[in-house]
This record gives sequence, structure tokens and C-alpha cells, in this order.
Amino acid sequence: MNESSYLSGFADGEGCFCVTFNKSKRHRFGWDIRPSFSVSQNRDRAEVLEIFKERFKCGTIRPDRSDRTLKYEVRSISELVEKVIPHFEKYPLISGKNRDFKIFTDICKKLLKKQHLTVEGFNKIVHEALALNPSARKKFPRAKIKI
Amino acid sequence: MNESSYLSGFADGEGCFCVTFNKSKRHRFGWDIRPSFSVSQNRDRAEVLEIFKERFKCGTIRPDRSDRTLKYEVRSISELVEKVIPHFEKYPLISGKNRDFKIFTDICKKLLKKQHLTVEGFNKIVHEALALNPSARKKFPRAKIKI
Repeated sequence: MNESSYLSGFADGEGCFCVTFNKSKRHRFGWDIRPSFSVSQNRDRAEVLEIFKERFKCGTIRPDRSDRTLKYEVRSISELVEKVIPHFEKYPLISGKNRDFKIFTDICKKLLKKQHLTVEGFNKIVHEALALNPSARKKFPRAKIKI
Repeated sequence: MNESSYLSGFADGEGCFCVTFNKSKRHRFGWDIRPSFSVSQNRDRAEVLEIFKERFKCGTIRPDRSDRTLKYEVRSISELVEKVIPHFEKYPLISGKNRDFKIFTDICKKLLKKQHLTVEGFNKIVHEALALNPSARKKFPRAKIKI
């Protein structure tokens, strides 16, 4: 058994590479850009979430407020770039979710380089995020994010 | 990348080892016992289902009537025992779903040996299936299956 490949297979089905935008007076342009990698599971079988946490040496496992699941989540941009993304570059997703991963990777690397602090960089990230998880529920429609 | 481990990881999240009971006048004791291994995915990313089909050299991919997904499914008892079960014995599930897999394996092997054709064997299978996927929706409550 190759545990790394197993985790990629599991994440291909159950994982989410997301970027959310939250209104914030403390952030430049009025928006806080938050990328996250997460995997959810029923509470009675959270074993694989523990393995993600051990393997990636970062992230948290906590109850998801929206339902009866547990969620493993990494939100730190530096940990996403240094620990999570390299795993999925070495053991890539097979499904179309790999397209999401590539967009997500590009956004995280831009954020780490502080490119979101310029108008041009911020707008590029918003544009890229438009293509990410288009079917997912959005807290704020992207069309509202104008600076 | 180890494709076998990847498939097990994917199945740990998205796969189902199920046994359903359908009323049938053609079957002994009035019930048709149908085990199945299935994996569902959104239609826009069915790549992994194709890999399951190629790897296991059996099963079908078709639209799930209940929603907008595609379902890879193996229902043949001999193919389950000869092709699907050996894969998950070699590359075992990490989560509590492995418990379901073991019950499922036992039921499939009993069916292959025609043990369901005796009253004792039939009742044992019904009893074992009681513990399988207890949260899943049941077409017929097990309590109704009495012979």
C-alpha cells in the first residue's frame, strides 16, 4: 500500500481546494482572500483525516458547523504552499479536480508573494478564482467583488 | 504514483459495498439478494470511474437515476469475488468502511457457495447484512425479511 497515493485518491473524491472572499475592513481593497484545502468525513470514520494531519504536519480537524461531519482543513498560505501543494504535485489528482488544484496552486503562490496587494494582482486572483469550483455555493457572488 | 492505492483511497471516500434485498417470486424464499460494489461521481469528472473499470476488467458505468451522477458498478457475484474483493484485500481501506468491506466479502463468498439456498445460510446472510451500511436507505427494512 502506498499511503501517499491513497491520500491523493481519497482527496480526489472528498477533498476541496477552495478560495473564499470575505468582506473585511482590515484588508486592503476591503476583501480577505482565504484559500483552504479541506477533506470532510462522517464522524464515525475519521481515520483518514488523522492520516492527512500526520502526513502534512499541519492543519486542524474539527466539527463542521453545517452538518454532522468532521473536517480536516489547512488555511495557512505558507503551509499550503510548502506542505499541501507539493504532495499533490508529486501524487497528482486523476480527475478533473486537478484543474481546480492547479488554479488553487497559482492563487496560493500569488498570495504568498503578496501580489494581491496591488490592484492588478488582486483583480487577477479574483478572475482566476471565478473558474474555481464553479458549482460550489458562494458566500458572495464574484460579480460583487469590485475594487 | 501507485494507481492501486489511489483507487483504494478514492473508494474509501466514494465507494459503497452494498447488499440489497428485493422481493422476487423467482428466487428461493421470495428474496433476491444482490451485492454490489459501486462508486459515483459527477458527470463532468468521471475519469476515475473509467480507471476502476479498466483495472477491475468488469462492471459498468451508467447514469444514476437518482441524481446527475455517473455510477461505476459491479454486481456479478463471481466478478466481485474474483476481481473486486482481491484488490481491496491487497490494498485495504483505512477507514471504518473496511469493516463494511469484510462483511460484504463474507456475504459474497457465501452467495458464491450457494449457502443462501438453505434456510440457515439465508438467515445468516440477512443477519450479517443487518450490520452493513446501517445508515443507508433501505428499500425494505430487514425486519420484513422473514422466511
